[in-house]
Amino acid sequence: MSERARIPKPAARRLSLYLRMVQDRIEQDGAADRVSSRELGEVAGVADAQVRKDLASFGAGGQPGVGYRLHDLHRGLRQALGLQQPWRAVLVGAGNIGRALLAYPRFAQEGFEIVAVLDRGGGVVGRRIAGHVVQSMANLSEVIRRSGAQLGVIAVPPDEAQAVAEALVEAGIRGVLNFAPRALRLPKSVPVVAVDFTEALERLAFEVTASRPGSGRSRSGG
Amino acid sequence: MSERARIPKPAARRLSLYLRMVQDRIEQDGAADRVSSRELGEVAGVADAQVRKDLASFGAGGQPGVGYRLHDLHRGLRQALGLQQPWRAVLVGAGNIGRALLAYPRFAQEGFEIVAVLDRGGGVVGRRIAGHVVQSMANLSEVIRRSGAQLGVIAVPPDEAQAVAEALVEAGIRGVLNFAPRALRLPKSVPVVAVDFTEALERLAFEVTASRPGSGRSRSGG
Repeated sequence: MSERARIPKPAARRLSLYLRMVQDRIEQDGAADRVSSRELGEVAGVADAQVRKDLASFGAGGQPGVGYRLHDLHRGLRQALGLQQPWRAVLVGAGNIGRALLAYPRFAQEGFEIVAVLDRGGGVVGRRIAGHVVQSMANLSEVIRRSGAQLGVIAVPPDEAQAVAEALVEAGIRGVLNFAPRALRLPKSVPVVAVDFTEALERLAFEVTASRPGSGRSRSGG
Repeated sequence: MSERARIPKPAARRLSLYLRMVQDRIEQDGAADRVSSRELGEVAGVADAQVRKDLASFGAGGQPGVGYRLHDLHRGLRQALGLQQPWRAVLVGAGNIGRALLAYPRFAQEGFEIVAVLDRGGGVVGRRIAGHVVQSMANLSEVIRRSGAQLGVIAVPPDEAQAVAEALVEAGIRGVLNFAPRALRLPKSVPVVAVDFTEALERLAFEVTASRPGSGRSRSGG
């Protein structure tokens, strides 16, 4: 949809953070049924004026002093992020990260479904994990064609990641989520999102250092 | 240290992305020993002028048309991010995510060490995982005091995350990396960085939608 394609990437990231928070609120018993731009701004680290601008970009309107209705916002955010359609993903790698992802409670709820699990071999092919019989990478094209998967999740050792990524693209996958700590080189038409645990720890180390009392800066307004 | 504290959070995130890329380059055999602001801008999704500004903030100077020396930049980025000191972390939760983190190849290399693994119980306490004997949460304070850990990593089910986070703060932990898909409420003096797999998948779905050829016209239904 043209609306969606016009939202720039950093804004999309903020919408995703707002969606997390709205989802949390909806799940909380007894929480208010509205949320303010100030509260949303806190989770994304931006001013409330930016939040109002972000939400206006897809037509969500809040009332001054009253805020946004949670359920309306939830629907609007999902639509703006392209989540109203179901997304199907194949997972490559049945190791610890792969297993953690299969057990991840929120994917289905947010419209993501892992439709197949594949592995290079090593004894795990043919075994059943979280309801999926692990399939051989040799069947990749067929698995993707039959399942209609659009996304590929890479959870293999770093040295195998590039080859797996290329096989996924070759088989028609349109986007890759990469858990291997290795940069992937893929055609520009296939977006890659990397989940890098080291980057997260570095961000934390930085914030701890910056928030240390006496480090030369107070936390207010940061 | 005050130098570091002046870098705003989004800039710190970019520095972390630059560091990843510089690290990748250094590890590549036969790669050039310099990197350009344009190349660095590509990994962080910003213009090269922004890169030059970011790097100048901690005194790194590049030469026009020649770029930045990889090893100088590596050292400068690590210092700017507070990584020249070693960081010690305790891991709570010896499930799949915890095991994946223990096997993660890059932590040690980047100056992060998981010094202890704890779990609530359930048969895993006392077992050895990746060289660590899993300890009981009942020993948390003692483990943190003895190990000198500054960071806590939460890899427990969502319903247990808040209680674990509070116990970590109580025991003196100064920052938390949270893998549980649940927002934590902690004192402002203790930074939390969340790794949210669903957010990563949403970002990917958004990018796939936005990068689809003809997505501005042909998609109907919204």
